[in-house]
Amino acid sequence: MKRLSTAIFALLCTLTVSFAQEPTKLFSPEVHPDGSVTFRYTSSKAESVKVVGDFVRRPLSMTKGEKGVWSVTTEPLPSELYHYRFNVDGRMVMDPNNLYVIRNVADFYPYFIVGGGKADDYMVHNVPHGTLSKVWYPSPTLGMDRRMSVYTPAGYEKGKGRYPVLYLLHGMGGDEDCWQEFGRAVQILDNLIAEGRAVPMIVVMPNGNTAHKSAPGQSDEGMYKPYFGGSMDGSFESSFGDIVRYVESHYRVVRKPSARAVAGLSMGGGHSLCLAANNPGMFDYVGLFSPAVKPRMESPTYENLESKIAAMFAKNPKLFYVAIGDDDYLMEENVEFRRMLEEKGYPHHYNLTDGAHKWNVWRDYLVDLLPRLFK
Amino acid sequence: MKRLSTAIFALLCTLTVSFAQEPTKLFSPEVHPDGSVTFRYTSSKAESVKVVGDFVRRPLSMTKGEKGVWSVTTEPLPSELYHYRFNVDGRMVMDPNNLYVIRNVADFYPYFIVGGGKADDYMVHNVPHGTLSKVWYPSPTLGMDRRMSVYTPAGYEKGKGRYPVLYLLHGMGGDEDCWQEFGRAVQILDNLIAEGRAVPMIVVMPNGNTAHKSAPGQSDEGMYKPYFGGSMDGSFESSFGDIVRYVESHYRVVRKPSARAVAGLSMGGGHSLCLAANNPGMFDYVGLFSPAVKPRMESPTYENLESKIAAMFAKNPKLFYVAIGDDDYLMEENVEFRRMLEEKGYPHHYNLTDGAHKWNVWRDYLVDLLPRLFK
Repeated sequence: MKRLSTAIFALLCTLTVSFAQEPTKLFSPEVHPDGSVTFRYTSSKAESVKVVGDFVRRPLSMTKGEKGVWSVTTEPLPSELYHYRFNVDGRMVMDPNNLYVIRNVADFYPYFIVGGGKADDYMVHNVPHGTLSKVWYPSPTLGMDRRMSVYTPAGYEKGKGRYPVLYLLHGMGGDEDCWQEFGRAVQILDNLIAEGRAVPMIVVMPNGNTAHKSAPGQSDEGMYKPYFGGSMDGSFESSFGDIVRYVESHYRVVRKPSARAVAGLSMGGGHSLCLAANNPGMFDYVGLFSPAVKPRMESPTYENLESKIAAMFAKNPKLFYVAIGDDDYLMEENVEFRRMLEEKGYPHHYNLTDGAHKWNVWRDYLVDLLPRLFK
Repeated sequence: MKRLSTAIFALLCTLTVSFAQEPTKLFSPEVHPDGSVTFRYTSSKAESVKVVGDFVRRPLSMTKGEKGVWSVTTEPLPSELYHYRFNVDGRMVMDPNNLYVIRNVADFYPYFIVGGGKADDYMVHNVPHGTLSKVWYPSPTLGMDRRMSVYTPAGYEKGKGRYPVLYLLHGMGGDEDCWQEFGRAVQILDNLIAEGRAVPMIVVMPNGNTAHKSAPGQSDEGMYKPYFGGSMDGSFESSFGDIVRYVESHYRVVRKPSARAVAGLSMGGGHSLCLAANNPGMFDYVGLFSPAVKPRMESPTYENLESKIAAMFAKNPKLFYVAIGDDDYLMEENVEFRRMLEEKGYPHHYNLTDGAHKWNVWRDYLVDLLPRLFK
């Protein structure tokens, strides 16, 4: 752009005229090579600015410097995707200098990634990329068209081959978008497939909240304010066949149990368990991440769950995977669930990790699970 | 969710613990049936809170009420998609109660839609929805894989038929996402196709900034801070064949001039003109929205443009569409361009409207153009 004319500079101005920004555009957050991170925020009036983030136990006080620029630098942080906000005189605010935000239910959080370790899997690398599509499928069971996200691996569009399918389910408050936002599923899949750590697969991420057709604002329900809801009444499980029918008739998939996996987190772990139990022999791979294994409501889907689970294990699934963090508030029901698995002698892979009921462990579990599928 | 158990309520709390929000979650903005809009913001400490938006010429002062809730209600607004921010004691901030935000270059803006008129086309209705895919295509010309957005109309995945293609280009600062954000292209296409106002078509929205592979954060360039850049050096036009080759080999498209359209706004209008002129007979439909018609840099693409334009018109395109608002800062070069069209006797449709160099007119132009394509 060497010979950039003045007319281009005129273009630069048009869109920002009516919304003058902060006087200085700062670089924040700045991730340093050693993993430490500098946050910056401009305010000449503020009396106190702190960083509140999932990488610190207590808010981190920022120091006011020249021109009203507050800043603080953390200790070197372990490789991870972190999110945060600023507390300015008691008010939680976004970082106006960080473009990168992810949504959780009705709130956005600025985020950053510290590489050099496990979070390298969450970053975009120069590898072949799959396609992410937002697809509408008919759900006759629920009487509505519904939206879901579908990842097709690099080469799918060009090729002729058939692929295995992972159905990847979210928790309460989530929707068809969240595994791509907090979950970094697209980057994880691209990277693991490119490195040969996972086989190329189609990944279907539906919306597990049957009260809605889609993520907020994407359907004719309009621009409502979402709440921390979900479906634990069996309606998602009983309408799941609509999703499978759509996927198996619209994508080049292998229509065999050995090429079907279902996995999910929290509520979606409960969904995965119940889908597998209600459809013995349908999935050869089942993954439960911090799962809500105990039914919360009454539904035929949840009746006789023990005998359904027995029928499922009678079909010898190749992998029954359970992962949970030692600080997870659902630990108690999971201890009970694992005791049942042990007592009955059901083969399973149990992955007890550090951590709580949060996205950082669910990303870990996805990275841990994918290499175990379809092999 | 009648029999919601306490365990579900426990789930409600986990994700919000570390990031306590504003004390009250307000309803803001509230669009009333008459088109007036109420904004609300909580701050007991602020001395002045104003709304700055594209629906008011001057900031709208808010009044402090009980519990530190500031509010103001506008006059009834014409049907439109509007964006805004709050000015709190001189600082521009987001509306923490509005989940719905759209990005422009490096900034986010809360937005809302007033229906009951033209903006009904921007809303999601209960009609068959197309699929939006984020696709990576190889660009041998630029030596990189690049990302683009592809809209396939409802029924595409199931059917066998071939479709016409609109290549829809953005302006400076934009990327492959912006026609879906500020441009509402997906909603407009779904609605116009469902109502029979436009024929079903595939719409390809590439990234017209060849300095980047993708929208910010989506490629291995990492989480950089985007600038108001673009490509006006001919590199986008000279690499456009890579896009067409991918589209015509990966989608069921009609490979004929009568089934190819190219349209774009501002820089993308310049791209559209140059693509059509450099490839006479390739596109039967050309749309220029507030176009940057004068080359800004030197490139073989821009050489002998007048004779290339003559060659293009010699192929009798079915539609050569130019639209611009009377307040557009690119008016002067467009007056000159139109004079040339008139003098040469080149058939064209000229749509002179109210408005400036902004997204509100570009949405209008898309709605106006689509019914004229492929008929």
